[in-house]
Amino acid sequence: MARFPFSAIVGQDEMKQALLIAAVDPSVGGVMVFGDRGTGKSTAARALAGLLPPIMAADGCPYGASKEDQARYPDVCGRGKMVKRAVPFVDLPLGATEDRVIGSLDLERALRSGEKAFEPGLLAKAHRGFLYIDEINLLEDHLVDLLLDVAASGENVVEREGLSVRHPAKFVLIGSGNPEEGELRPQLLDRFGLSVEVRSPKDIEVRIEIMRLVAANEADPEGFAARWAGEDEKTLKRIARGKARLAKLTAGEDVLRDAAELCMAVGADGLRGELTLMRAARALAALDGARAVTRKHLIAIAPSALRHRLRRDVLDETGSTVRIMRAIDELFG
Amino acid sequence: MARFPFSAIVGQDEMKQALLIAAVDPSVGGVMVFGDRGTGKSTAARALAGLLPPIMAADGCPYGASKEDQARYPDVCGRGKMVKRAVPFVDLPLGATEDRVIGSLDLERALRSGEKAFEPGLLAKAHRGFLYIDEINLLEDHLVDLLLDVAASGENVVEREGLSVRHPAKFVLIGSGNPEEGELRPQLLDRFGLSVEVRSPKDIEVRIEIMRLVAANEADPEGFAARWAGEDEKTLKRIARGKARLAKLTAGEDVLRDAAELCMAVGADGLRGELTLMRAARALAALDGARAVTRKHLIAIAPSALRHRLRRDVLDETGSTVRIMRAIDELFG
Amino acid sequence: MARFPFSAIVGQDEMKQALLIAAVDPSVGGVMVFGDRGTGKSTAARALAGLLPPIMAADGCPYGASKEDQARYPDVCGRGKMVKRAVPFVDLPLGATEDRVIGSLDLERALRSGEKAFEPGLLAKAHRGFLYIDEINLLEDHLVDLLLDVAASGENVVEREGLSVRHPAKFVLIGSGNPEEGELRPQLLDRFGLSVEVRSPKDIEVRIEIMRLVAANEADPEGFAARWAGEDEKTLKRIARGKARLAKLTAGEDVLRDAAELCMAVGADGLRGELTLMRAARALAALDGARAVTRKHLIAIAPSALRHRLRRDVLDETGSTVRIMRAIDELFG
Amino acid sequence: MARFPFSAIVGQDEMKQALLIAAVDPSVGGVMVFGDRGTGKSTAARALAGLLPPIMAADGCPYGASKEDQARYPDVCGRGKMVKRAVPFVDLPLGATEDRVIGSLDLERALRSGEKAFEPGLLAKAHRGFLYIDEINLLEDHLVDLLLDVAASGENVVEREGLSVRHPAKFVLIGSGNPEEGELRPQLLDRFGLSVEVRSPKDIEVRIEIMRLVAANEADPEGFAARWAGEDEKTLKRIARGKARLAKLTAGEDVLRDAAELCMAVGADGLRGELTLMRAARALAALDGARAVTRKHLIAIAPSALRHRLRRDVLDETGSTVRIMRAIDELFG
Amino acid sequence: MARFPFSAIVGQDEMKQALLIAAVDPSVGGVMVFGDRGTGKSTAARALAGLLPPIMAADGCPYGASKEDQARYPDVCGRGKMVKRAVPFVDLPLGATEDRVIGSLDLERALRSGEKAFEPGLLAKAHRGFLYIDEINLLEDHLVDLLLDVAASGENVVEREGLSVRHPAKFVLIGSGNPEEGELRPQLLDRFGLSVEVRSPKDIEVRIEIMRLVAANEADPEGFAARWAGEDEKTLKRIARGKARLAKLTAGEDVLRDAAELCMAVGADGLRGELTLMRAARALAALDGARAVTRKHLIAIAPSALRHRLRRDVLDETGSTVRIMRAIDELFG
Amino acid sequence: MARFPFSAIVGQDEMKQALLIAAVDPSVGGVMVFGDRGTGKSTAARALAGLLPPIMAADGCPYGASKEDQARYPDVCGRGKMVKRAVPFVDLPLGATEDRVIGSLDLERALRSGEKAFEPGLLAKAHRGFLYIDEINLLEDHLVDLLLDVAASGENVVEREGLSVRHPAKFVLIGSGNPEEGELRPQLLDRFGLSVEVRSPKDIEVRIEIMRLVAANEADPEGFAARWAGEDEKTLKRIARGKARLAKLTAGEDVLRDAAELCMAVGADGLRGELTLMRAARALAALDGARAVTRKHLIAIAPSALRHRLRRDVLDETGSTVRIMRAIDELFG
Repeated sequence: MARFPFSAIVGQDEMKQALLIAAVDPSVGGVMVFGDRGTGKSTAARALAGLLPPIMAADGCPYGASKEDQARYPDVCGRGKMVKRAVPFVDLPLGATEDRVIGSLDLERALRSGEKAFEPGLLAKAHRGFLYIDEINLLEDHLVDLLLDVAASGENVVEREGLSVRHPAKFVLIGSGNPEEGELRPQLLDRFGLSVEVRSPKDIEVRIEIMRLVAANEADPEGFAARWAGEDEKTLKRIARGKARLAKLTAGEDVLRDAAELCMAVGADGLRGELTLMRAARALAALDGARAVTRKHLIAIAPSALRHRLRRDVLDETGSTVRIMRAIDELFG
Repeated sequence: MARFPFSAIVGQDEMKQALLIAAVDPSVGGVMVFGDRGTGKSTAARALAGLLPPIMAADGCPYGASKEDQARYPDVCGRGKMVKRAVPFVDLPLGATEDRVIGSLDLERALRSGEKAFEPGLLAKAHRGFLYIDEINLLEDHLVDLLLDVAASGENVVEREGLSVRHPAKFVLIGSGNPEEGELRPQLLDRFGLSVEVRSPKDIEVRIEIMRLVAANEADPEGFAARWAGEDEKTLKRIARGKARLAKLTAGEDVLRDAAELCMAVGADGLRGELTLMRAARALAALDGARAVTRKHLIAIAPSALRHRLRRDVLDETGSTVRIMRAIDELFG
Repeated sequence: MARFPFSAIVGQDEMKQALLIAAVDPSVGGVMVFGDRGTGKSTAARALAGLLPPIMAADGCPYGASKEDQARYPDVCGRGKMVKRAVPFVDLPLGATEDRVIGSLDLERALRSGEKAFEPGLLAKAHRGFLYIDEINLLEDHLVDLLLDVAASGENVVEREGLSVRHPAKFVLIGSGNPEEGELRPQLLDRFGLSVEVRSPKDIEVRIEIMRLVAANEADPEGFAARWAGEDEKTLKRIARGKARLAKLTAGEDVLRDAAELCMAVGADGLRGELTLMRAARALAALDGARAVTRKHLIAIAPSALRHRLRRDVLDETGSTVRIMRAIDELFG
Repeated sequence: MARFPFSAIVGQDEMKQALLIAAVDPSVGGVMVFGDRGTGKSTAARALAGLLPPIMAADGCPYGASKEDQARYPDVCGRGKMVKRAVPFVDLPLGATEDRVIGSLDLERALRSGEKAFEPGLLAKAHRGFLYIDEINLLEDHLVDLLLDVAASGENVVEREGLSVRHPAKFVLIGSGNPEEGELRPQLLDRFGLSVEVRSPKDIEVRIEIMRLVAANEADPEGFAARWAGEDEKTLKRIARGKARLAKLTAGEDVLRDAAELCMAVGADGLRGELTLMRAARALAALDGARAVTRKHLIAIAPSALRHRLRRDVLDETGSTVRIMRAIDELFG
Repeated sequence: MARFPFSAIVGQDEMKQALLIAAVDPSVGGVMVFGDRGTGKSTAARALAGLLPPIMAADGCPYGASKEDQARYPDVCGRGKMVKRAVPFVDLPLGATEDRVIGSLDLERALRSGEKAFEPGLLAKAHRGFLYIDEINLLEDHLVDLLLDVAASGENVVEREGLSVRHPAKFVLIGSGNPEEGELRPQLLDRFGLSVEVRSPKDIEVRIEIMRLVAANEADPEGFAARWAGEDEKTLKRIARGKARLAKLTAGEDVLRDAAELCMAVGADGLRGELTLMRAARALAALDGARAVTRKHLIAIAPSALRHRLRRDVLDETGSTVRIMRAIDELFG
Repeated sequence: MARFPFSAIVGQDEMKQALLIAAVDPSVGGVMVFGDRGTGKSTAARALAGLLPPIMAADGCPYGASKEDQARYPDVCGRGKMVKRAVPFVDLPLGATEDRVIGSLDLERALRSGEKAFEPGLLAKAHRGFLYIDEINLLEDHLVDLLLDVAASGENVVEREGLSVRHPAKFVLIGSGNPEEGELRPQLLDRFGLSVEVRSPKDIEVRIEIMRLVAANEADPEGFAARWAGEDEKTLKRIARGKARLAKLTAGEDVLRDAAELCMAVGADGLRGELTLMRAARALAALDGARAVTRKHLIAIAPSALRHRLRRDVLDETGSTVRIMRAIDELFG
C-alpha cells in the first residue's frame, strides 16, 4: 500500500501536533496513541515517515551514525564519511523476536570464522528516527519496558549470549493501542512523553470527505501524492525550522511555575509531568516559530502531556481530559 | 477428494457473493465465514479455487511475481519471463508452523555453503491468490494478526533469525469458524472485509437435492465435473469481466453519503465500515456488469460488509443482520 | 498377547457392525467407540486387523501404494511392482510424537548427505488400512484435528522443517474413549462417521461365557485361534464381497427422503448426518448382500450414524439413542 | 543399604500374598500398594527381589531374552546362548526421563558412525522381572499409562526420533502410593491386577519386634541375612513349584460363576474384575500346592482383586474392603 | 565471609544437639531446621563444617572413596591410596541445575573423544559429608525427593542421557526453611530424621552478647577464630569419641518399649518415629560417653525426632512440641 | 543521557544518606529504594556512580581483583599488577539472562579449542562496586535470591554446565521498586540492609527548582557538570575519609543496648535488625567524622535500617516509619 500523505489526513489535530512535536524534539519522549479500531492511528504514524528532513549519516554504518556518534562509539560506528540518508522509520513487525529487536550474535560469522560478532537489530535501525509499534498493548510488558528503557537512555546495552556491546539508539517510540483490548501498566504509560486520543469523526461531511480522499488515493496513488506534495513540503520545512530554533528557546520562570501548579492541581504523580510540559511547550513554541515559550503553548500541549499520568480519583469520575481542562480553567482562566 | 464444482453448490448465496467479490477486487479485504459444523463452508471456499482465471507470472519464481513485482522487488523476484499459471489457492494445513507460514532461513543452504538465504513460506505461495484457514478461531491470535497484517499491506516483512527480507504477498484471506467454538477478538474480526453466515438448509427438498448431488459426485467425479464445467466457465468469465470493468467504476457522492449514513445509523466503529461498503459495492457493480455503483449494490452488500463491526447494544438484543436490515429500511426504504 | 479372534467376541453387535461397515466402505468416516473401562473396546478393534482381505501394494513402498497412487503421486510412490500385503493396522502408541505421526525430516540422511529427505510417519504406514487410537480423549485436540483432517482428505500435506510433501493417506480412524474421562469437542465428534456404545454385559451366563473363552485362549492361544479360524474366514469373505458389490448400489429417492426426515426430526446439525446415513446404509446393504438399499438398512445404522450429532435438548433429557429410536418409530413405525 | 529379608517382614500378609501371586503368574497384572508413610511398602517390594528363582537368558542380550524371545524377535534378541541370570528388579529412579524408560536413539553410535541404533531403556532391563515405582501417584499420568500399556501387552513399541523398534518387555509393575498425596485416575487403577493396603501395626509388641529386627539388621547385616536365608529359600521354592503347577490348573465352572456373581454383587465395572479373580485364584492355588482352584482361593484373593474397581456408591459410604467382605458373606457365607 | 566458630554460637541448644547427633551417626537421617528469618540457621550449619574430624579417602577420587567404597564400587572409585581429607560440606548453590546435582554426561570428553563418560555432580562431592540446602521449601519437590532418596539409600543411581551409573553418596542432608514461606509436603518432612526449631532470643542480654560477638568477629576474624579454637577442638574430639563408641551401644528392650509407647501416645504415623528415636537416643548416648542408652537420652531427643511426624489433631490445637512433652510427662513422669 | 551530578539532586536526604553509608561500608548490605514513578530513584542511584573514589585493581583482570583477591583466588585472578580503575557500577539491563549475570561456559573457546573455560558475568563486573536493579520487583524471585546470596557471601559459586568456579563478587546491591507494582517477599526484603522511601516533593518552589536544574542540565550538560564538580568532589572526599575512619570505630555497650531495645520495641524479627543498626550507625559516624558511635547516629539511621523488617501488627495499622519514630520517642525521647 502506498503511504497516505500526512497533509491529506482529515482532522485528528491532537495526534498530528504530538507527532510534529516529537519530530522537533525527540527528548520529549515517546507518543502513545489511543483510539478505537479503524480510526487511522497507523495511517498517521506511517504518514509522518514521509515528512522528515534527511540526515547526514556515516556511509555503510548499520547505526546511521552521526559525527558525534562516531566520536562517542568509535568501536561500533567506524569512520565512514557522511552521506545523506532518509530518517529511519521502523515498523516493528508482528512476530519480531527479542533477538531481532536488540540484536544478537552473528551466527553466520560465528560459524564461518569462530568469531563472536554482534549483528545489529531493529533498535540499531531505528537510531535517529522513529520506532512504531501497532497494538503495543499486545506486546509483552517485558519488551515494552526494554524499548522504553532504550528510548530513554538513547543507548542499547546488550549483555547476552556472551556479547557485551553498547551502541547509540536514539529514537522516538510511537505506540498505538485500543483501550478496549487491555491497558498498559500505569508504570509503562507514565514513561511515554505524550499521549493522544483519536476517535471516529461524528460529522457525516467529514466522513464522506475521508471516503472521497481514500477513493482518490486508491484510484491513482501517484497523482494523489503529487497533489499533496506541496503541503507536505511546507510541513517538512516547519519541522526543520523548529529543530533549528529549539536551542534558542528556554521556558521562563513563569511557565515553569504554571507547569508545576497545573501538575499539582490535577494530581500528576512524580515529576515527569512538569518536565514533559516544559519540554513539549518549548518544542511547540519552536514549531510555531514563536520567540518565547508562553502559557498558551503550555495549555495547548497540556492534555497530551498529562492525560496518562493522572491518578484515578474515586470521588471524581470525570475523564482525564476534562479534569485537565477544568484545572487549566481554574488556574489560568 | 475431488473438488466439488462451485456451480453445483446448492443455495448459500451470500457466501458465494462474498467470494466472487473478493475474487474481483482483493482490496476489499478478507472474507470470514461463520457457520455450524457440516454446512459446507470449506467445500465452497475450496470450490472457488477451480474457478479463477489464470495469471501471468515469472517463470520459476517462488512468489509467482508479476511484471510489476519484478520492477518493485528486483532482488527477490528475479527476471524470469512471464508464463501462465493457475491462481494460487493455499490451504493452511493444521500444524503448519509460523516458520513455514512466514518463511525462514534455508537451513540446507546455510549448512552446505554457509550462506544465509531465505526460504519462502506459505505467504509467498499465496501471493496473488487465496489463503484459506479452516477453523481460524483455533489459530493463535498472534498468527491471525500476522496474516491480517500481511494481507492488508500486501507485503511480508521478515525480521528473524538474522534475516531481513521483504517480498510481495497480496492475497485474499478466507477464514471459516464455528461461533460455538469461541470467537475471534472484535479487533481481528474488524479487519476482515466481509463476513457471511451459512446455515444448514431447512427445506427437505434442498437437503435431498444436496444428497443426490453428493452421491452423484462420489459415484463418478469426472462425469460430474464435466456436467458442471459449462456453468463454472460462465462464472469464470463473469469474474474476468468484473476485474476489467472495475477500474472504470467510481462510487458517486450519493453512494458515499448512503454508506456514511448507514454506518452511523447502525453504529459501526471506525471508518472501515464505510470504506468496505464503498469498495464492495463497486466490486459487485463490476461483477454485475453495471454502468454505475448504485444504492442497490450498497444494500446487497451491506450485511456482509457491516455485520461483524457492530457494537453490542445492551438495549437492543436484536441480531446484527436484523439491525442492519432495519436501518436500511428506515434510511432507504 | 495373542490377538483374540473377531468371531469369538461375545455380544457387542453394534460395535462389530460399525467396524465391518468401515471395512467395506472407508469413506463412511472413522468409528468412535464409547464405553466403560474393561468392556473390550480395544480387543474388538485389534481383532478386526486379523480379518481384512490382503491388498496389492507397490513393493518396498513405505506408503503401500496402489497402482492408482503410483499414477497420482509419481514422485513419492515410485514404480515398484505390485505384491500382496496385509492391510495395515496401526496402533498409535502412547507418547508417539507429532513428528512420527506426520513424518519428518530424515535427519540421518540430512546429516550424511546434506539432502533434505522426507521420512514417512505413521500416517504413511496407515494408508489403505486402519489407525487405532485408544483413549482418544487423552490426545491433544490439535492432533485429533489433524488426524481427522487427513482421514477426511485421504492425503497428508506436510509443510514443516522446510519440507513440502504430499502423500496418500487413506485410512479409517478408530478412536475409543471413556465418557467419564472427559469428552471430545462436539466439533471433533461430528467428524467421525459412526459412533457406538459398549457396555459390560449384565447377563451372568454371558459373563461366564466370556471368562471361559478368555481362559481357553490363555491356556492354548494357537489351538483357540485354529478353532475360530473358520468363522473368521467367513467374515473375511463377507467383507470382500461387500466391497465388490458396493459400486453397484445407490440409495434411491425414498431412502434419501427417509434420511433427511430422520435428521430433521432428531435435530442433527449440518448435513453430515444424512450423508453418513446414506453411505452407511449402502455399505450395510452391500455387506448383507442385498440388491437394494432399503429403509431397513437405514434404521439398522441410524443410531451409530446420528448418536453423536444431536444437539442437546434442554426440554428433553432423554438419551441420544432413545431419541433416535423414538423418531424412527414415529416416522417409519 | 542392605536388603531386608522377605521372611523377616513382620505381618503385612496381604501385601506379601499379592507379591507372591504376581511372582507365580505375572499375567495377573501389576500390584498397587496403598499405605501411610513409613509402613514398609518399599521394604517389602525390594525384599521380593532377593527371593526370585534365577532365569535362563541369552548371554549379553540387553533384554535378557528367553529362547522364545529369540524366536519371536530375531532382529533385536540375537542368538546368544542361554546362561543363568538373576530375575531383574528395576527400581524406577526419580528423575528418570521418558527416554531412559522407553529407550532412545543411541547418540554415541549416531555421532560416531552415522547409524541410527536403538539404545534399550529401563523397560528392556525389566523384561521377565519386576519394575517398581515408589510414589507412583507423583509420576505423570502419561508415563503411568505408558508403563501399564507395555506391562499389559508385554511388548515395547517405540516410534520416536525416527526409530521404529519393538522388543519384548514382560514385567510385573509394582506401584506404591500414599492416598493422602493425591490419587491415580480410576482408569489407571483399574489396570492394576491387584491392590493391597498396608497400615502401621497397632500392637505394641509387634512394633517392638520390628524395632528389634531393624536394630539387629543394622548392627550386623550379614549375620542377619544368614539367619533368615533358610526361610527365604523355602519361599523361593514355593514360588518355583507354584510356577510349575500353574499350567495344570484351570478354574472350574463353579468358580467362574462365583467370580461373576461376586463382581455383579459389589458392582465392579467391566470384566477385568472377574478375569483377575479367576487368574489370581488360580495362582494362589498353585502357590498353595492345591489340586484345584476352589472358592476358598477366590475368597482369599477377592479384596486384593476387586478393592480398586468398585464404583463409589453414594448411599453406602462403607469402605471398599468392607463391601467386598459383606458381599462374600451374603453370597457364600 | 569467614565462618563463625561453632562454639561461639549463643544458645540454640536443640539445633546444636541435632547437628552433633547427625555428625556421630549419619544413619539417623537428615536434619530439618525451621525458624524465622535472621535466626542464624545457616550460620550454625556452616559452622559445623569446621568441626568435623578428617577422613581417609582415595587420592584423586571424585567421590572421596573409603576402602569399603573401593571394594564395593571398583569401577567408579579406582584404587587410589588413602590420604587425609576434610569432611566434605556442600552448600547447594541457588540455581544449581539437576544435572550438576546428580552428575551428567561429560560433554567435553564426549566431544573430544566420542566417549560417554560420567561427570560426577554435587551428590558425589557430598559423599561422606554434609549437603546443606538453605530455604529447602523453595526447591522443587521433585529435587527434594531425589535428594532424600539418595540420602536414604546412600547411593546415587543415574539413568539419563544414555548413562547408567551408580556411585556411593552417603551424606547428611541439612535443610533449613521458614514456615511462613510455604511448607514441605508431610511426606517429605517425615523422611528427615530430626527437626529443630530456632527462634530469635527474647532476652536482651543474649541479644547484646550476640551483637558483641558478631562485631568482634567482623573486626578481627582471625583473632576471633583463634580465641574459640580450643572450644571447637573439644567438640571435635567429642564427636570422634562418639563415633567410636557407637558400635558398642544397643538400645535395650525397655528403651524400645518406651519409644513405641511414646510414638503411639502422640500418634506418629508409620514406624519411622520409633526407629529414629532408637537411633538418635543411641547416638546421643555415644556423644555423651554414656555406657548405655537410657530413657533420659530418649526424652532428650524426642521433640527433635517426633515433632515433624505428628498428625494434625483437630480437637487439640496444641503445638507439636507441647504435645510431645505432655505425653512424656504422662508416660514417664 | 549524561549523568546528573549527585550534589545537584534536590532533597531526598534519606536516600542520599543510605547510598553514602553503603559506599562507606558495603557490609551494611544492599539498599532498597521504594517510591512512586518519576521520583528520581534511578537518577540518584546512577549519580552515585560518579562519586566514588577510584580503586587499585589487577590489570586486565575481569574481576578487578585487589591484592587480597589475588592471594585468595590465585587461579581466577592472575597476577596482574595493580592499576587505578573506577569503581564499577553495573546497571542490570532488562532482559539480561541468568547466564550473563552468573557467568557461563565460554562457548567461543569451547568450540575453538574444546576447552571448558568460564566467561565471567555481571557479578564479576560488579565486584568491589555497585549492582543496580531498577524495578527489582519485576525480576524473578529466584534471581533476586541469587543476587542477595552472592552479595551476602561476597563470592559467586558457579556449579553449572559442567563448570565449577568460585570468584570474588563483593558489591552493594541497590534495588528500586514501586510498591504499587507488587511487592518483594518479606524474606527477600529482610536481606537488604537499608530501605528508603522517596516521594514527589509537595513544595512548589522545590518542584520549580528541579525543573530549572533539569533544564539547565539539558541545555548544557558539560557546563552543568562543571558547575557541580566542586560539591561532588567534597562528597567524594567525605566518603574516602569515612572509609578510612571506619576501622577505628566500634559501637559501645550502650549503643548495642539501644539497638536491641529498639528492635524488641518495634518487633523486628530475627537479629538482622540490630546487626544492621550497629553497622549502619558506625558507618554514619565514620561518614560524619565523629569520634564515637552515639545514640544520635543510631536514631538517624533507624528508619532506614528497620522499616522493612517490621511484622504487620493487626491492631496497629500505623505505617512502619511512624511506629519506629514513636518507639524512638518512647525509649530515648
